[in-house]
Amino acid sequence: MLTTRLTHAFGIEHPVVLAPMDLVSGARLATAVTTAGGLGLIGGGYGDGEWLKREFAAAAGTRVGCGFITWSLARHPELLDVALDHQPAAVMLSFGDPAPFADRIRAAGVPLLCQIHTLDQARRALDAGADVIVAQGGEAGGHGVGTRSTFTLVPDVADLIADRAPETLLLGAGGVADGRGLAGALALGADGVLVGTRFWATEEAVVSARAHARAVTAGGDETVRTSVYDIVRRYDWPVEYNGRVLRNRFIDRWHGRETELAAQLAEAAAEFKDAVSQQDFDIANMIVGEGVGLIQEILPAGAVVRRMAHDAAARLGRWVPHTAAVGG
Amino acid sequence: MLTTRLTHAFGIEHPVVLAPMDLVSGARLATAVTTAGGLGLIGGGYGDGEWLKREFAAAAGTRVGCGFITWSLARHPELLDVALDHQPAAVMLSFGDPAPFADRIRAAGVPLLCQIHTLDQARRALDAGADVIVAQGGEAGGHGVGTRSTFTLVPDVADLIADRAPETLLLGAGGVADGRGLAGALALGADGVLVGTRFWATEEAVVSARAHARAVTAGGDETVRTSVYDIVRRYDWPVEYNGRVLRNRFIDRWHGRETELAAQLAEAAAEFKDAVSQQDFDIANMIVGEGVGLIQEILPAGAVVRRMAHDAAARLGRWVPHTAAVGG
Ligand SMILES: Cc1cc2nc3c(=O)[nH]c(=O)nc-3n(C[C@H](O)[C@H](O)[C@H](O)COP(=O)(O)O)c2cc1C
Ligand SMILES: Cc1cc2nc3c(=O)[nH]c(=O)nc-3n(C[C@H](O)[C@H](O)[C@H](O)COP(=O)(O)O)c2cc1C
Repeated sequence: MLTTRLTHAFGIEHPVVLAPMDLVSGARLATAVTTAGGLGLIGGGYGDGEWLKREFAAAAGTRVGCGFITWSLARHPELLDVALDHQPAAVMLSFGDPAPFADRIRAAGVPLLCQIHTLDQARRALDAGADVIVAQGGEAGGHGVGTRSTFTLVPDVADLIADRAPETLLLGAGGVADGRGLAGALALGADGVLVGTRFWATEEAVVSARAHARAVTAGGDETVRTSVYDIVRRYDWPVEYNGRVLRNRFIDRWHGRETELAAQLAEAAAEFKDAVSQQDFDIANMIVGEGVGLIQEILPAGAVVRRMAHDAAARLGRWVPHTAAVGG
Repeated sequence: MLTTRLTHAFGIEHPVVLAPMDLVSGARLATAVTTAGGLGLIGGGYGDGEWLKREFAAAAGTRVGCGFITWSLARHPELLDVALDHQPAAVMLSFGDPAPFADRIRAAGVPLLCQIHTLDQARRALDAGADVIVAQGGEAGGHGVGTRSTFTLVPDVADLIADRAPETLLLGAGGVADGRGLAGALALGADGVLVGTRFWATEEAVVSARAHARAVTAGGDETVRTSVYDIVRRYDWPVEYNGRVLRNRFIDRWHGRETELAAQLAEAAAEFKDAVSQQDFDIANMIVGEGVGLIQEILPAGAVVRRMAHDAAARLGRWVPHTAAVGG
């Protein structure tokens, strides 16, 4: 239906790729997306070799790839071998310099996806030989730089690609939650989309029913980019990154008061840990993007892929009559 | 070519509206946009009655509207009479509560456009009886709230409108700089677009050649949302608003150090004023959005309107063959 350079290059039906969400994108979700005609990526995240092996084993027989948090992979480079041993459909590198890993990935004949947030990072990804650039705007759920938006970053990177490496493919990421988002990203110059939040809100995602219930009622104005949860989790994110989450009591208390939070870290971390185990989302984190407001129900991932593709095709196709009537 | 509910409602050819940019959108620019088939809005801005009368007089014979900064209009409410006396094609209210002015505008039979930045503001604009909602994302040049992006705000507001007042029209604003942006906004659910930065970079805009030259070489990563210039201009912006400008030496020095800036205000304001008169844009402000990176040349405004519309139509129309081949 909506064939693009991406569907041709990867031999898939719909130009929709599952974001490799840490812990959330397991084998079940990744295989559901691939089976429905998209491309599923397992979330290698911060790096847990046993988890990765288990999920790849569970996905055996279905074509899936995986993604890594690059600055974390640099501390556990052996995880890349685990991934490459499973002949992944693709390896995606996010949040850090892809150069040290790019050669091994391409030598294995595996397509390299690089997620970027600025033009500068896009240039470095092209230098590293990325086959696919994932241009992520600040509306996205999860980590990123947050200084650019999907709406301008996609055409900006499309121009850069056209200029420097026209065979490179481009995915838009950040805020794509339905057929409008897919159609919008394609219109802006992308070859497809990478989707996180909308797949987070599916039956196959490793997400609790309570978190799902809260997301379904949340509005698009209710998320915020912050470093509060990285501080409280003692994660070593490079300073330019923060992450978009649902606002809650914990955020209202600490966002903008990071110095004080660091000073009371032991206490706050204990409170956070407790809340996570109790699924108390007034304190625990829910990692979703602005697109959460567009999500009204938890669906099977396959239904999300198909609806997104069909709605986008219908939406783009409905411009036919006018154009044809006048222009042709 | 690209007819939408907006082109029908306003009797225009292309779904492209000029943003009422303070000082920048004078009669010359507004009439050029209308003449090319879009809709021109004069920038009523912070409010100068003589300027407004002069520009409306200069535009006489061409259908244009105008826009106001609402919190400022509340201090000079007589300016609305100046506008209404000229039978404007539309009045746009941005940055403040439209309710106190809405009845007079609608009683005059003039379409009311309300610019909003969050869903909450959209709800209030619908309550006030807006005919057109302008959903502005944080990538936009100039002021706004900056917590939402065009890519998700447009479909979010489209859903709100469908639910609450389906006859209301919707414009996307923020980052629309070429045919891709127009096509993207329409795909996301808008009936048209409101464009600032791209028209700022036209021959008819009240912008100096030196500012234009700098914009043409600027990249999309080089803008930032800040309050620095509002502080230094001693403007009374409500606390939730800041503005996107090109980064420069002055911004690098003061952004994030607003308290110190306030403490040294006399000095900094004098330096700023001086720089403005000398067109020293290392210190003076250039109000442009993320879309500035997509602008490679200064063009006549009419050419911008026509290219944007034609490129968008071509872009949307090229999805025809696939859809038709498989679906029909
Ligand atoms: C719950 C969640 C976890 C994420 N974890 C990762 C991750 O481990 N690695 C990664 O590259 N991106 C991660 N992301 C970001 C995605 O790659 C992607 O940029 C983002 O989800 C796109 O925006 P969207 O959420 O609006 O679809 C995560 C996103 C979410 C929502
Ligand atoms: C130079 C400049 C001045 C602006 N002044 C105003 C103004 O006086 N009133 C207003 O409603 N919006 C103003 N805006 C914001 C526009 O209405 C609009 O939201 C914005 O330009 C859209 O994003 P874009 O710049 O990426 O096209 C201004 C924008 C720019 C670039």
